[in-house]
Order: sequence, then structure tokens, then C-alpha cells
Amino acid sequence: MPFIVNGVKEKEIKTMINEKMRKLGAVRSVIRELFEYGKKRKAEVGEDNVYDFSLGNPSVASPDCVNEALMDMLKNENPVLLHGYTSAQGDAGVRAAIADFINETQNAGVNADCLYMTVGAAAALTCSLTAVAGEGEEVITLAPYFPEYKVFIERTGATVCEVLCNTETFQPDIEKIEAAINEKTAAIIVNSPNNPTGAVFTEDSIKALCDVLRKKEEEYGKVIYLIADEPYRELVFDGVKVPYLTNYYNDTLVCYSYSKSLSLPGERIGYVLVSPKMSDFTAVYQAIAGAGRALGFVCAPSMLQKLLPKVLGKTSDITIYDTNRQLLLKELTSYGYTVVKPDGAFYLFVKALEPDANAFCEAAKKFDLLLVPSDSFGCPGFVRIAYCVKTEQIERALPAFKALAESYK
Amino acid sequence: MPFIVNGVKEKEIKTMINEKMRKLGAVRSVIRELFEYGKKRKAEVGEDNVYDFSLGNPSVASPDCVNEALMDMLKNENPVLLHGYTSAQGDAGVRAAIADFINETQNAGVNADCLYMTVGAAAALTCSLTAVAGEGEEVITLAPYFPEYKVFIERTGATVCEVLCNTETFQPDIEKIEAAINEKTAAIIVNSPNNPTGAVFTEDSIKALCDVLRKKEEEYGKVIYLIADEPYRELVFDGVKVPYLTNYYNDTLVCYSYSKSLSLPGERIGYVLVSPKMSDFTAVYQAIAGAGRALGFVCAPSMLQKLLPKVLGKTSDITIYDTNRQLLLKELTSYGYTVVKPDGAFYLFVKALEPDANAFCEAAKKFDLLLVPSDSFGCPGFVRIAYCVKTEQIERALPAFKALAESYK
Repeated sequence: MPFIVNGVKEKEIKTMINEKMRKLGAVRSVIRELFEYGKKRKAEVGEDNVYDFSLGNPSVASPDCVNEALMDMLKNENPVLLHGYTSAQGDAGVRAAIADFINETQNAGVNADCLYMTVGAAAALTCSLTAVAGEGEEVITLAPYFPEYKVFIERTGATVCEVLCNTETFQPDIEKIEAAINEKTAAIIVNSPNNPTGAVFTEDSIKALCDVLRKKEEEYGKVIYLIADEPYRELVFDGVKVPYLTNYYNDTLVCYSYSKSLSLPGERIGYVLVSPKMSDFTAVYQAIAGAGRALGFVCAPSMLQKLLPKVLGKTSDITIYDTNRQLLLKELTSYGYTVVKPDGAFYLFVKALEPDANAFCEAAKKFDLLLVPSDSFGCPGFVRIAYCVKTEQIERALPAFKALAESYK
Repeated sequence: MPFIVNGVKEKEIKTMINEKMRKLGAVRSVIRELFEYGKKRKAEVGEDNVYDFSLGNPSVASPDCVNEALMDMLKNENPVLLHGYTSAQGDAGVRAAIADFINETQNAGVNADCLYMTVGAAAALTCSLTAVAGEGEEVITLAPYFPEYKVFIERTGATVCEVLCNTETFQPDIEKIEAAINEKTAAIIVNSPNNPTGAVFTEDSIKALCDVLRKKEEEYGKVIYLIADEPYRELVFDGVKVPYLTNYYNDTLVCYSYSKSLSLPGERIGYVLVSPKMSDFTAVYQAIAGAGRALGFVCAPSMLQKLLPKVLGKTSDITIYDTNRQLLLKELTSYGYTVVKPDGAFYLFVKALEPDANAFCEAAKKFDLLLVPSDSFGCPGFVRIAYCVKTEQIERALPAFKALAESYK
């Protein structure tokens, strides 16, 4: 039983709550701690003198078409329908439009009934994991990885099996993955473009990974689900292609969000796509829908759903992120940092200048640089720089990065 | 382990999914079945000739101030902030405004930090239940009750303990509740104004209930949480008052939604209020926040949060629901139906004209009247009429109600 006694009142009436949940609510993440420190520090030395690279919150506005379409709907559509319940899996017309868009861009052969609209990618992940993983099972994450995966996986009762990527390229290490899969493996989460490294997994990596997954499915006689977490799909540079995983592996669930591509992180709109080629497609889709129901999602926000057909294929101005990326890459390399060139997302993963990334981040704080140590991503010795900030912040921060590097020479 | 084998492919690769979730996703609720039947029947005999009273979907538009405020924000506010992440517990200014409003209207002595903004009332319930109930515990529901309570409670691992209300008044039966509470009781859900009966629990009922809860807290030496599910709070008639439960019982969680009061059911915006007088307030609040995090909610939709301070105290035009209520009450009574006069919500609970409510609803279908049998609410022998429809639909349906009654004479 996950319950413990937390406190005793004068009258000896005990509070019985879920202690695991309390801890999750009480413990701030490393990233949130840094963010709060940054707010305090800015109050002391001025907004412009603290270089906060902690949060992955887009700084670029939504494309104009988003607000224009929302205003148009508010002005012209029947409010009872606009703000009304959609079916639990999402509005049928919205799902059809998204399916068409996926087919046009990815040639994926999907249809409206493959899509289950969700309250963002986090909900897509919790519904998918609740459907396919549980007590006594394992879910593989490829380290470094987004720390909330651990929270989502463990809530289902399953355990996390971390497999480190190649730390030169941050491509998946296929041999290590093969060695990690066992009869308890329910699923593997793949996040490309990656948070925190910015790596885009190459087609060769994906093919090799899927070959291993198929082999292991046969070996253990059970499905191993590939959960593709893709909120950064559109944020890629230099024309790099992000393979669409349903085209490589039948037992794929794609978790998508419009948070980053359209700069709508607070609005919570995304979906799960169940590959139409999946074994027992209907049962898996139903289990995801059942999870959505049991977790209390009801439906994805209706007006935001109805926005999507009007803005499919549009993105925020990602050239700003590319400018930031190139500036940081060039300058940090010239100061002596070891940086893996990211092909996507808006994160730079930089080798710490001493073995302990936490100590390095503390040292960076002395130069008012707020960097996230990589330990919570399951890959010690690095720092994450979220460069989804104004370019001016980077320009102002460069002397601090230089001074930090020099302090280690 | 909750997993079973669902299917076997040619290659003998088994699908392993969460069978409980699959069933929840596969089985349509009685209400949804009726709704689908209604759509089919309307295609056969015409929209106006089918009298669908199955769904609790508001038919009255949001007040104009809602869309006006949304358009104003879209036009004038910084889109990066408007659509950006809020903190997980919700925007601080929004929570402060709601706390002020609750204090003005209910004299409840709450503050911003008592509020945790949620993706609607369903999310408020799943977060609250995940925080305070689990394996080996019981949660009391007062029958008849909203069937999704069972889904939300059982997902935490706890079991449902149904306690029937007085079926003359549909007030809680205090003696039965007292007898049902035991050392496993974690919480009781109170829903007033009630779905499906429309009953508003009187102050006397609430006082008697809270006395019993306090007595049982002392007897068992542990907190029993009172979860007040209040999406219908503003939908009351004849000046009836809905007691604010934090004023009667310290260990109260209020789950609220703007779905019905502002006709925004698809937009998913609500909150949990943790009573500031609760034992171990901080631990309970943290456990709710942890549940929100683990279930994948991230934050309540940001633009909808920011709408709230601009529309607090406003409601859709509920006089239409009152017109419908009075018309149905008067006419149905004159045809010989036994109806409990509802003081709130938009449901009428009517005694079936034969012992089996399902058979009665099948008979009603022959008159193209779509009524929900009460079995799934945990109180057989009645039907629920959702009168959140256009008044004309009721006027057109009256001859059918009359003919149905006459068919039983």
C-alpha cells in the first residue's frame, strides 16, 4: 500500500495521503529550482544581467495565423459548438484533417481513427504508457532523456530501464539497447529531435533500432511498443529529415504536441497516433481511450482542436532558434567548450569543464549563467543550454561563457 | 498484474496491454449508446421528431463577455505569455482573483495558495482521488451518482461504496452513511446540485453529514476527506442556497468547473480548492499537485485560465433552464408521472412507470423519447431527463410523454 501517515493532529486524527504523489508535488525539479533562483537573482542585479538558459519555454510568438484563426472562430462560429464537448477521441473533422496532413507530409497511410486527441504531449505519453505498461514491466528510456518520463512510467507501476546513448554523437547505442531488452520490456521511448541534446536520430539509427525491436518481439513472442515523443519534430535545421517512425516499425505510437511548433505550450493540445499497422490496433486504441477516460481528460480543449485544421503545416519563426544555435555553437567552440552540434529542438548539450556537472553549474552561477546539470537527464557530466531565448540574451551572455571557460584554464 | 493477452498474431507475437483500460475505452456508456441511437433515428425520421434528453451538454451559449474577453486578450496581450506555460498549480494572479471571488461570495477565508487549477472538474476529481485514496481503501458515493466517479475511484485502486439517498427527497441518508463508514473509508464524494436528480443538499443535510464525518474521524483516528464536486453550483432556481462545504467541514476539497456555469464544457477549465482549515494542508496540496504532474496535466489551459478573472460571477442565461424545468414539472405531473422537483442543475429524475427502468426507456424509444435509465447511476427504477435543450424540443416532446404515460394505463 503506497500510503503512509504524514502527520498527527492534536486530536490524534491521522492524515492518510499518497506519499509518492506528495513527494512529486513537494520536490521541485532541478530546472524549476534554477528558474526560481534566476528570478531572485534578477531582482538583485537586474533582468539583463542574469543569463537564464534553464527553461524550454518558447520565446518566439505563435505565427499570426493562430490568433487570427482563433479570433475568426470566436466571432463567427456557434459558441455552443465551439466550446462544447467533442467526442472523447477528438472532433472527427479535426482528426481527419490531421490524418490527411500526416499522409501528405509523411506518406504514412493513416486515417482519422488512428488519432486520439490529447491535452498536450504529456497526456499523450501518460495515456499511452497507462495503456501498454504496468506493474512488473519495464520501459526503456534513452539517456539523456526528459526527466518527466520517469514520473510518467513509474506512475503506471512499471520501472524505468535507462540505456545511455553514444555520448559522442548522442545517437542511440543499438548494442546496449539490444542487451537491455528482456521479457519484461513493454516499450521504449524515443525522443527525436531530442531534449536535452538536440540530436536528431538518423535513418540508419532508426532502422537498426527497429530491426532489434522486431528481433526481440520474435524472441520473446510479445509486442514491444515504440513510443515516439515528437514535440520538436518541426524544429530542425539545415534541412535535416526526421524519420516518421510508423514507416519503420508497425508497433509505433506517436505522441505529438503543438506546444513547440506553434508556441502554444500552455494551451495543451496534442495527440497520440496509433499506427494502423499495429498488431491488435483496435485493442491498443481502446486501451489509450480508456486511459484518457480513467485519468480524467474527457476531451482535448475544443477550441484549440478546431484551430488545428486552419494552421496545419504552419510554425513559429524557427529561424530565430537557428540563429541562436549557430551563434552559440561558433562562440562556445572558440572558447574551448566541447559541444555536440544539434540538428533540432532548441537545446545545446555541452560537456562540463569538470567531472561533476553540478559543481560546474554552481561555478557558472558565479557568472550569472543558469545552466541545467545533466544528472537528472540520466547522463552526468554535461549541461543543457535552452536557447529558446532572445538572441540578445545570448549576445550579452557570451562574455560570461568566455570567462567561465577561462576560469578552468 | 492487470495485464492479459489480448490477441495472437500469425507470428505468435502477443499484444500485452492494460485490459481494464481497454474495457473502459471499448464499452460505451449507456448515455453515449442512446446518443448514437438518437443520431441514427434522427436521420430516419427527421431531427425534430426525435426527442433526445440523453446528454448533459449545455444548449445555452456562453455569456457574451466570454468571447469578448478572449478576443480582447488575443488582440492585445503578448502571445508568448498568453499561450505560455503557467506554473503547474496555475497562474498566481488568476488564483488570487478566484480566491477573492470565493471569499466575497462564500465568506470562506481562502487564499490563492489553496487553489490548484485543473483541466476541468474531471481532472480535479482524478487529482484529488489520486492524492487521498488508493489500494485497500473505500470511497463513498451517494447514489444516484455520476457514473464516471466509479471509473475515477477504481483507477486509484480504491473501491466504491455506494450509499443510497432517500429516494423520496434525494437528500443524503445520514444513517446509511454512518453505517457505511469504516476504517477503510478514505473519502466521500458529495455532488450538489446533483447529477442526475437535480437535488440541492440542504444546510440541515450538510450539517448532519459533517457531524457524522467528524465523529467517524475521531472514532477511526484518521481524516475522512469530503470531496465536493460542484460543476452545477450556479445552476440553482427559486433562490435556493448551496452551502459552501469548507464552511462546514475542515477536511474538504472542492472540485469546480466552469463547464456548466459558462457553457464551456469542451474547454476543460476548473480547479481543486483545498480548505485552508484542512489537517496537514500542505501535504494534501502537494499530493494533489504531484498527482497532476504524474497524470500528465502539466497546467490548465493558459488562455482559459487568464479569461477567468474577467468573467468571475458571470453565467450563461440559466432562466432558459428554469423555463424548461417548470414546463416539464407541470406537464409531466399532470400526465401522472412522479417527479422529484429539482432545485438545481438541469436534470429531472422521474420514476419509471414500470419496475425495470431499462424496459421503460425501451418503451419510451417507441415514442422517440430518449431517456437515460437510472441503473448506471446506482439507483434503479428511474429515468434521467437532461433538460439542457431548447424549450421548443420540450414543447414538441410533450405529446410523446403523454402518450407514453397513457400506454401504461
